[in-house]
Amino acid sequence: MTESLTDRRARLMGPNVPTFYRDPVHLVRGEGVWLWDADGTRYLDAYNNVPHVGHCHPKVVEAICRQAGTLNTHTRYLHEGVLDYIERLTATMGHGLSQAILVCTGSEANDIALRMAQAMTGKRGIIATDNTYHGNTTATSQLSSRRPPIGGYPPHVRLVPAPDSLRPLGGSADRQAEVFAGHVARAIADLEDLGIGFSGMMLCPFFANEGFPRLPKGFFAPTAAVIRRAGGLVLADEVQPGFGRLGSHFWGHDWLGLVPDVVTLGKPMANGHPVAAVVARPDVMAAFREAFGYFNTFGGNPVSAAACLATLEAMQDEGLQENARTVGAYARERLAALDHPMLAEVRGEGLFFGAEFVTDAAMTPATAFAADVVERMRQRGILMNRIGRHMNTLKIRPPMPFSRENADLLIDTLAEVLALTPVPA
Amino acid sequence: MTESLTDRRARLMGPNVPTFYRDPVHLVRGEGVWLWDADGTRYLDAYNNVPHVGHCHPKVVEAICRQAGTLNTHTRYLHEGVLDYIERLTATMGHGLSQAILVCTGSEANDIALRMAQAMTGKRGIIATDNTYHGNTTATSQLSSRRPPIGGYPPHVRLVPAPDSLRPLGGSADRQAEVFAGHVARAIADLEDLGIGFSGMMLCPFFANEGFPRLPKGFFAPTAAVIRRAGGLVLADEVQPGFGRLGSHFWGHDWLGLVPDVVTLGKPMANGHPVAAVVARPDVMAAFREAFGYFNTFGGNPVSAAACLATLEAMQDEGLQENARTVGAYARERLAALDHPMLAEVRGEGLFFGAEFVTDAAMTPATAFAADVVERMRQRGILMNRIGRHMNTLKIRPPMPFSRENADLLIDTLAEVLALTPVPA
Repeated sequence: MTESLTDRRARLMGPNVPTFYRDPVHLVRGEGVWLWDADGTRYLDAYNNVPHVGHCHPKVVEAICRQAGTLNTHTRYLHEGVLDYIERLTATMGHGLSQAILVCTGSEANDIALRMAQAMTGKRGIIATDNTYHGNTTATSQLSSRRPPIGGYPPHVRLVPAPDSLRPLGGSADRQAEVFAGHVARAIADLEDLGIGFSGMMLCPFFANEGFPRLPKGFFAPTAAVIRRAGGLVLADEVQPGFGRLGSHFWGHDWLGLVPDVVTLGKPMANGHPVAAVVARPDVMAAFREAFGYFNTFGGNPVSAAACLATLEAMQDEGLQENARTVGAYARERLAALDHPMLAEVRGEGLFFGAEFVTDAAMTPATAFAADVVERMRQRGILMNRIGRHMNTLKIRPPMPFSRENADLLIDTLAEVLALTPVPA
Repeated sequence: MTESLTDRRARLMGPNVPTFYRDPVHLVRGEGVWLWDADGTRYLDAYNNVPHVGHCHPKVVEAICRQAGTLNTHTRYLHEGVLDYIERLTATMGHGLSQAILVCTGSEANDIALRMAQAMTGKRGIIATDNTYHGNTTATSQLSSRRPPIGGYPPHVRLVPAPDSLRPLGGSADRQAEVFAGHVARAIADLEDLGIGFSGMMLCPFFANEGFPRLPKGFFAPTAAVIRRAGGLVLADEVQPGFGRLGSHFWGHDWLGLVPDVVTLGKPMANGHPVAAVVARPDVMAAFREAFGYFNTFGGNPVSAAACLATLEAMQDEGLQENARTVGAYARERLAALDHPMLAEVRGEGLFFGAEFVTDAAMTPATAFAADVVERMRQRGILMNRIGRHMNTLKIRPPMPFSRENADLLIDTLAEVLALTPVPA
């Protein structure tokens, strides 16, 4: 069955289409934190952030059904749905972030954010870290280091070394914030020297793809000062940390203590319905809207708005941010108590956490080991993954209704798997 | 009510957010070809192509509800839905177009198509017409002439004069195809002289935004020859003409007699659910997938695939392509019979047609007159719009179940409105 689906994929979708796991999972049903495959095997979903309030949340499904059966148009006509949602969404934010554009994917949102920085500064130079991902459009994919664009990186993009927990920039955790800011300052100077100029920096405030390094509060302050001095904007990509996932804060930028000019949202926003957004201050929004005249046919349609609103309401009604805080803390405590010679660091926040594995005291990444652990977890019915520059950090980022009991199953199974997985000689 | 919604929009969405009509319509319900506003006024929808099989088609709504309540994940897991749909979709196409990437918007689809041409040729130069629209991402918006990008058009984009019915390129309809091809040849030579090189041409095979000029079969043949000789790709944007709208053919490229290397799809594909696609030959798909390694979280998710499949099935089960052919022909015949001094040409195909108005024998565009007609139609409960370089062509592009009776109401009302609308002195 799985084999023939894999063949059909190759025939109909072409080569190099990514899947998870050596033996990809053929899913047929989801509910809450659970998924079932075609053979009836149940999986605990400890990875997917798209079903933010749980797979097939009945209130979100009901909202989609009701609105899809009533009206689905676009924002060239007037409708309350998109307005009600933007009002509720921006009420969760500070920093004057009071206006939004609804789009369909985080990539579209980041593609707009880049142009907002251009519209505000009249410049194109943009900085990101060298181990990130901000989308798959032509413009946003130029910020991803994993696969260089055809013809190489364009001159207006500068990628600075990402912060790291175990291998801090400058050699010590104390110096990391300043060294990072120094890299950003040099990138800005370089963009200005070349006559390109500097428009801003785009970053995930949790540095999710960088492996969510453990960073002190205030880490970003020296960098923010450098960016402000140069007249650039801070574009916070909240696709991964946003919507209460970090537990202590609703937004990653508040968790890091960063004041963004633009915030972008994506995956978890409508529990799987294709929606994303760009939120900005009115001055930034006006600069973009006047310079570019943006319209997105599907963006902010009544069905999408209803799905967004139901997701936000479910999150608030069910106390899912607080659940992320308490269950996340519990799970990390249990994870940290695991005794394994290669476990170098347990880190993360709320329901976005993991553990980095190394082979020796020189912090050599245990990439193959982490890969084996992920595969063995999948074989035991737990879906998770790995991340970071060396792909040696377990990435645990479950739907938000993940319970203490779910965390116990996850950690108990991980303890079993760690005991069974051969440690490299 | 409308006033306060307009104010709320400005407060929450910012300035310069486009709406239709001087007094925007506040819609609350849709069914088939009908829409209702908040005051209970009913409108005949003679414009929207997104609700392709009719507003809130029960089979599409049911498919969305059923799948949203069962499972919604992404293509890193295996699922039949996306494969079943790609199989059905590509079965409607020839030219070796057998593989697809599902994405969320036509903009994303065209953004990929541009990179497919780059991956195949190793070059970046791209040609479009000077009165078109292919999307709102950074890359695709550079092909739109309506609003130039910040910093001006990039050197790899060349816009050639669009064909025109009443003002043919080269001064005569007979010469238009060759003159158009000549412009494309010069643009290619220019790109090559500058060392940029030529990757392809992106076009709507119906030249929808250009005002869907009346063109002879074979119009594109000389241009296709020029493109092929230069090693470029033909990227057919089927967002508007596709899915049977033209009646005689399921796809606009077959209607025009054009052999595309890549076809992009959007708005009507899932009746309003945010879905779009890029369809290509396996060699083109492989070149892109190997060069860029594309993944789109929401693209091809099980709910989107179910919505796509239900839309395609409704279209086929209800004979909507044939309906477009017969009702479109009937409506155009009635439209052509209207006696009005400013009506210069009735044109179009299937359920995508309209009429161009001019003020004199020199073909001076009657832009303000056409705008007044559209507003008066809206006041009489019929939604339509205008298009073309001079925005003086009425654009009629209703949901596909548009009936002969609907066409009668449309044309009878238009006759009334034409009689009432002041003719400029």
